[in-house]
This record gives sequence, structure tokens and C-alpha cells, in this order.
Amino acid sequence: MASTPCDVAPKSKASLEDDQPHLANSLTTNMTNKVETMIWQGGTEGHLDMIDQTLLPNEMFRIECRDVETVWEAIKMLRVRGAPAIGIAAAYGVVVGLQTVNDETEAFFARFDEVTAYLATSRPTAVNLFWALDRMRRKMDSVREDLSVAEIREKLLVEAKLIHEEDRKMCHSIGAHGADLLKGVKGVLTHCNAGGLATAEYGTALSVFFTAQDQGHDLHVYVDETRPLLQGARLTAWELMQRGINATLICDSMAAQVMREGRVQAVVTGADRIAANGDSANKIGTYSLAVLARAHGIPFFIAAPSSTFDVTLSSGDEIPIEERSSTEITHGFGRQTAPTGVQVYNPAFDVTPAELIEAIITENGVIQPVNEENIQRVLNYV
Amino acid sequence: MASTPCDVAPKSKASLEDDQPHLANSLTTNMTNKVETMIWQGGTEGHLDMIDQTLLPNEMFRIECRDVETVWEAIKMLRVRGAPAIGIAAAYGVVVGLQTVNDETEAFFARFDEVTAYLATSRPTAVNLFWALDRMRRKMDSVREDLSVAEIREKLLVEAKLIHEEDRKMCHSIGAHGADLLKGVKGVLTHCNAGGLATAEYGTALSVFFTAQDQGHDLHVYVDETRPLLQGARLTAWELMQRGINATLICDSMAAQVMREGRVQAVVTGADRIAANGDSANKIGTYSLAVLARAHGIPFFIAAPSSTFDVTLSSGDEIPIEERSSTEITHGFGRQTAPTGVQVYNPAFDVTPAELIEAIITENGVIQPVNEENIQRVLNYV
Repeated sequence: MASTPCDVAPKSKASLEDDQPHLANSLTTNMTNKVETMIWQGGTEGHLDMIDQTLLPNEMFRIECRDVETVWEAIKMLRVRGAPAIGIAAAYGVVVGLQTVNDETEAFFARFDEVTAYLATSRPTAVNLFWALDRMRRKMDSVREDLSVAEIREKLLVEAKLIHEEDRKMCHSIGAHGADLLKGVKGVLTHCNAGGLATAEYGTALSVFFTAQDQGHDLHVYVDETRPLLQGARLTAWELMQRGINATLICDSMAAQVMREGRVQAVVTGADRIAANGDSANKIGTYSLAVLARAHGIPFFIAAPSSTFDVTLSSGDEIPIEERSSTEITHGFGRQTAPTGVQVYNPAFDVTPAELIEAIITENGVIQPVNEENIQRVLNYV
Repeated sequence: MASTPCDVAPKSKASLEDDQPHLANSLTTNMTNKVETMIWQGGTEGHLDMIDQTLLPNEMFRIECRDVETVWEAIKMLRVRGAPAIGIAAAYGVVVGLQTVNDETEAFFARFDEVTAYLATSRPTAVNLFWALDRMRRKMDSVREDLSVAEIREKLLVEAKLIHEEDRKMCHSIGAHGADLLKGVKGVLTHCNAGGLATAEYGTALSVFFTAQDQGHDLHVYVDETRPLLQGARLTAWELMQRGINATLICDSMAAQVMREGRVQAVVTGADRIAANGDSANKIGTYSLAVLARAHGIPFFIAAPSSTFDVTLSSGDEIPIEERSSTEITHGFGRQTAPTGVQVYNPAFDVTPAELIEAIITENGVIQPVNEENIQRVLNYV
């Protein structure tokens, strides 16, 4: 794409240091031949290699995180986003941060405290960030009396890789369960980005499509652009294209027409939070799709890990809906598209009632029909 | 609004010639104290004063059309848009174009041919453009044998004003019929721009809201931004604010949530073409609203003049759906928001089946329930 004065996506630190970012980028992409959000390169002295998501979809560029400051900046600036992906990045960030000290015990432990406290400030509201840092600390605490610093470094890298691998397995498991539900389906519709970029690999809703493709099932995926922040247009369309899946971008207002024309036989989205009765909060626009799908006799599925359930909430009525800044709607594309001073309503999420959800696809299995009993059964499956 | 490098809306000819366009603008606005798309200023030697719609909503600027070239450019560049408004502009354009010749008969008639042929090239697919030019010619033909050139000039100006006034009356009549249907309604939702900017004044769907306000009925109007071209955000929100109506802008994907929260008790949109059975084509996203309204028990209304009906079409199945350029979605705001090469589906319109429409509001009366018999009755009312 030709650069325009409106293309204001921030340049990554790495790209500023590189005279040929596009070349470096394409070489890296070709080497891995996969679209992995994060890759650990080498041993305990290695580095974290991640996609800079702020440059997508116009540029595919990978950042080499060789110091903890680069990891911190990547989380802070949303170069890596999505709850699971942030946790994984933070875990690897601990390993990278410890590379600046030698194997002297006191300095190593002091540096550990320093690095975890620093990383915790990168995105203070991200639950998975603290979860991952806690898990790294528990691992260190469990071995610090018995092992050498060099051995602890190894254990911490193994733990970070385990967090990464567990997430990957979770995604693949969701994909396998979901792909079974799409037998005979030719076209599907999705919303926002519930893809590999937010996780270790494959994602949740997109994992269903990727797994179907792996099984030789050609799907045509319609992608809602997902106003106001366009995660569908910017991220989901890109992920599907990277994997060679037939993807067609539409505006959110076109979903009903796509359903009416018989182009899709299922809708699959992710979820941010699911109540005990199955009511599911997800990106604004999801509820609209569920109502439209019901009106057209099309099943509506949610794909989400068991960690998404919050069974302390009896129903969706207890899920607060965050309202976000009006400028996301009035100045969403680098220029003003609405009158100065206009009132705006910008709910970030909506809640889809359980009765509109055909099934919830988790790593433990499929919840179908969606009710409290089936949710409990599947959550307690492990 | 502060000017940004992304603010690429073309400057009007007039604003380039004026050192104080904002001052000139506000003076004009204050003088008229109304948001009229077009105003004829003076007698046969006067000029056409119109809002430059390409600068909305960031700038409210009126163009003074003192020559036919300025009228032609305004139609061509969409400074004036909407079928009725284009017809009115062309009619006044004929009057302006004839000001360059004196009252010598042969030169005057030759100039008339030249001016109408020239205006016809400004937007060759606009049916109302040709309709208005034909009407001006019929007027001239009816008087050319009997009147002086000076008298013919007067007659042509009267005819242009009549076209203008008939459209104004049509809008007000739709408004009056529609306002009766909104008794007890506090919140309404609309889509795209069916407003005064596209007509002489008041518009169609917006005329219902303006008339309700004139009757002392305070409505809160939720406005879909209407992707991809954002007519709701750019034009409808602006028109409502100009008239002091409580307006709240939302993304198209938020309409279902707004309905669910009980914020609106009716939906009113315009229509582009209505078949003999009441199936109605309108801006993409209208069908989605009609389905969502039905699911939430909210009445869905269409407001449109009788000229919108095409009774040669037995149903909406016969209405072709125009597909528009993918760049409207991928590069809609001066920057790229989707991956290069992504497939796009961009239908410009959808068709709402008659059974989802509670009533169609025309200048002749209200069609309710919507069926072929009631449509014939109201269309033949005049």
C-alpha cells in the first residue's frame, strides 16, 4: 500500500532501526511459514519474536524483543493484544529481563522482582498479565532453594513455553470441537477478532475455521468489519488471508443481507465473559448477529475457553457494559466523520442471551443446549 | 474542528475565493435562520444559494451560484445531492444560465438549448435532473409564442420556484402524516440520510421528526452512522443538531443493543424504490433494522413520496441490488483499514419485505397495513 499522510500507525522501535523492514519482515515470514503471534528463538539467552499488530494489515512486521523494555513497550502500545497473548508475552519478558544479570544469586532474585514489577505496569488492567507473572514467580519460588541460577533460568523458560503451549493446545481443542459442528456448512460469518493474534495460535472462533480447513473442509468466511475499531477488517480478514482461507469483508450492516441471500449457514464468534446461565458478553454487534441469525434460522455459536466463564454471575444482567470514548466513532479513521459536539453512545460490548446461542464451544467440549447444568458439566470435565 | 492533514474534503470554489468563509457562512446561516438546502436570492437576475454538502459536517458553507457552470459543478461534485434536490438545482440552473444573454429572441432560445444540454451532462444517471429540465422546457414551449423574453424569464423562475415549493409541500405532508404515528414515542432510530439536504426542506424520514418537534413533541433520535459512506454520521446527525433535536450517533452494529435497552420505540427510514406489494429498497442496513425491530416488538416505518413507488415491479425480487466499489469499505476514510487484496462484498441497497413494514408514510397519506390494495388506494388518492 502506498503510504498516505493519514497512515498514522506508530512505527515499531525495530522498524525505526532497520533500513529494510519489509525485506526483514518477508524473510522472517518465509522462515516460519506460519502466522504465529509469538515465537521464542533460542535458549535462555534467546529472544522473543512477535508480530507488531499495530502495523497490521498494511505491514506484516515482526519485532525482536531482546530486552524487557521492548516487551513492556509492545504490551503498552498494543503491539501484542488479546488476553492470552499478553500473558504469554509477559512470561517470556521475565526470561528476557533476567538476561542482564549474571548468575550471582542475590542480583538475580533482585532483578526478578524488578522485572516482574516493571512488566506489571505495562497494562495494569490485563488480568492475564498478572496471572502469568504470578505463575512465573510460583515456579521460581518452587525451585529457588534447590537449583542454581542457571538451572532456574532454564526452568523459567520452560514455564513460559508451557504457558504458551497450554494456550496453543486450548485453541486447538476448541478448533477440533467446533469443526465437528460445521459439517456441511459452506459459509460462516464472524465478528471482531477471536483469532490467533490474541492467543498463542489459532485463536478461538477462528480456530474453528482453521481446524476445519486443516481437515480439508473449505469454508467461505464472511468477516464483519466491526466498527468502531475495525478489528474484523484489520485483523481477522488478515489472519484468514494469511492461511489461505476464502474470506470476504463486509460492513456490519450487511450481515442480515448476507444471511438472507443464503451465503452463510452458521455464525461463530468469541466471547469476553460468560455468566453461569450461558449469557455471553462479547464485542458490540454480537447480540445483533445472534438475533439476525435466529430470524434467518441460522445457528449462532460461541467459541471460548473455560476461563471465560464467570460462574459468580448468575446471568448476563450482572455483566457491566463498558462505554468507551465518543472519538472512536467520530474520529475513528484519523479524520472527523461526524459533527463537532454530537452526542454519541458507544457501548463496547453487548450481552447475547443464552437462548439465542446454539452451542458454546470450549476446550473441554461443546455445551449444547446452553444451560446451567450443561455448563457445569463441561466446566468440571477436566 | 482543527484542520488535520487527513481532512481531504474538497474546498468549494466559493470558499477559495473568500478570505473569511466561516464568517460569510455564519452570516448567511443567521440571516435565514433555517437549514435550507437551496434558496433563490432575488428576481430573474438573482442567484441560487446552496449548502456545500461535501464540506459537512466539518464546515457549514453556502455556495453562491451566479453562473450555470457553478451549478453544474455543484451537481457533478455532489455539493448538492439527493434526487429532489438535484432537480431543483437544475431548474434554477436554467434561470441562471439564461442571464448571460440579452432579450434578443433567437439568442435567448439558443442559449436555453445550450444550458439545458450542458446541465444534463452534470449527473447523467439522475432521473430527477432530466425530469426538471423537461419541465422547464415544457413551460418555455407553452409561453414562447405569446410572451416577451423578459416575461419568459419570469415564467421560468416561477416554474423553478414551483418545483421547489411542490417538493417542500410534499416533505411537509409526509411529516404531518408521520408525526401522527409517533404519538407517545420518546426515542426513534433512523438510518442513512432521508433529510432536508436531499430535498427542498425537511426531507422524508427526518420530516417526520422535524414536524413532531414543530408540534412540541420532543423526540430523542438515534442515528446509525451508516457504513460505508457514513451519511448518518455526516449528514443526518448534522441536520438534527441544526434544528436542536436531541440526536445520538451510534455505529450500525449498536442498533440491536439500543432497541434491547428500550431506548427507541420506533424506527423510521426513507426508501429508494418501492415495489407494487410494498417491498422497499433502501440503503444497505435497512433490512437489518427491520428484522431487529420486529424481534424487539418495535414498529418499523418507511417515509417516502409517492414518486418512489415503481408499480411495474410486482415485488422486491425484481429490484436489482447495485454492488459498489470495494474501496468504499477498505479505504473509506482516506486511509487503508483492511488488508490489500481482501475480497469485499459491498451491496449498496437491501430490500425490506413488506411484511416487516408497519406502515409507509407518503404525502398522500399512510399505507397501513402495507399491501397492494392499500398502496393503490393511497397512490390514486390525489
